[in-house]
Amino acid sequence: MPKQVDHRERRETIARALWRVVERRGATHLTMREVAQEAGISLGQLQHYFGSRAQLLSFAMDLAGEQSALRVGREMGALGERPHPREVLRVMLVELLPLHPDARATSRMSAAYVLEALHDEEVHARARDGLLRGRAMVEQVVRQAVADGHLAADRDPVVETDLLLALTGFTTLLELDVVGPAAVLTAVDRHLDRLFAPPGGTGGTGAAGRAAAG
Amino acid sequence: MPKQVDHRERRETIARALWRVVERRGATHLTMREVAQEAGISLGQLQHYFGSRAQLLSFAMDLAGEQSALRVGREMGALGERPHPREVLRVMLVELLPLHPDARATSRMSAAYVLEALHDEEVHARARDGLLRGRAMVEQVVRQAVADGHLAADRDPVVETDLLLALTGFTTLLELDVVGPAAVLTAVDRHLDRLFAPPGGTGGTGAAGRAAAG
Repeated sequence: MPKQVDHRERRETIARALWRVVERRGATHLTMREVAQEAGISLGQLQHYFGSRAQLLSFAMDLAGEQSALRVGREMGALGERPHPREVLRVMLVELLPLHPDARATSRMSAAYVLEALHDEEVHARARDGLLRGRAMVEQVVRQAVADGHLAADRDPVVETDLLLALTGFTTLLELDVVGPAAVLTAVDRHLDRLFAPPGGTGGTGAAGRAAAG
Repeated sequence: MPKQVDHRERRETIARALWRVVERRGATHLTMREVAQEAGISLGQLQHYFGSRAQLLSFAMDLAGEQSALRVGREMGALGERPHPREVLRVMLVELLPLHPDARATSRMSAAYVLEALHDEEVHARARDGLLRGRAMVEQVVRQAVADGHLAADRDPVVETDLLLALTGFTTLLELDVVGPAAVLTAVDRHLDRLFAPPGGTGGTGAAGRAAAG
């Protein structure tokens, strides 16, 4: 079915054009016309594929999510057969932060999407679903880590998951050059070390914590 | 100087109209016309006070910052003469989160401001300055807490400040109903308990930590 493939390809080309525009100057004043220009097609052609800015943004978000999942999958693969949950959580968290161009475009789109969600019920529901799915994946890793004895039994998986997700707050600090990439990675590692510290540990020694818990 | 007072009052009235619009439906599609309508004045009158959307947003952000500082000041006052740094940090952090209408409007304006900063150098510089000032205030409290023995001496004030500020990541989770207000406060308290835990403590006993360190 070459026609369907073309259709999908064209939509992806447009979505990538949107990413480039967003990466370059944010998504606040994003217009369909600008995206069409970046994709090298007419506004009419663009509107043939996406009826509205919200539809285009939704498709671009979905595609970004798929790409992001692929990147996480690749990095997980590099961790070996039975990766430590600390490393798994680190890969997931770091991918959410604007630390490389693809993740930055995703993070900027996501910020625009959240603002749009505040006055658009459909976008709100979609964005919420996406976040709930992400939250469930992180919580699953945390629960398994408790079950496997990697995490102290007195850790509450719900609270720990919430605290891990809150680390996405580094996004704004990175975007405004308030904290640099190296400092963010140091802070994320400190949080993970403290999370995986054994009961009675100081939380400053991740390696020792892992050895004791493992 | 009654004229100057009127001028300031009029600008505040307009800023408050902006807050109401932002609180109601976010700041993405915010227009000067809409704010003028909400403030009960003509677009021409509004433009007499603010030449652009960015100027209006900047003034509203400054005013929100002042109001926010006043609220933090009041809450600090209620903590007594020599408040524990854990309580000081809690008041500062909780005020940053969209947990009541005023803080929600501030937080939504701030999100719009950050997006605007990505393609406007002047807004970027202003927003960055504001965040750096906030960061310095939090770091000052953390450093004093180490100096006073409330925080273990091996805590790195820079890293701990970054981790505290990252908790503003709860903003998105609250706005999209992914995590509720009670769960956020529980998580913030867990983080503070762990931060103030004595060396060798498990991080789950804030009160014991305080007694041992004090």
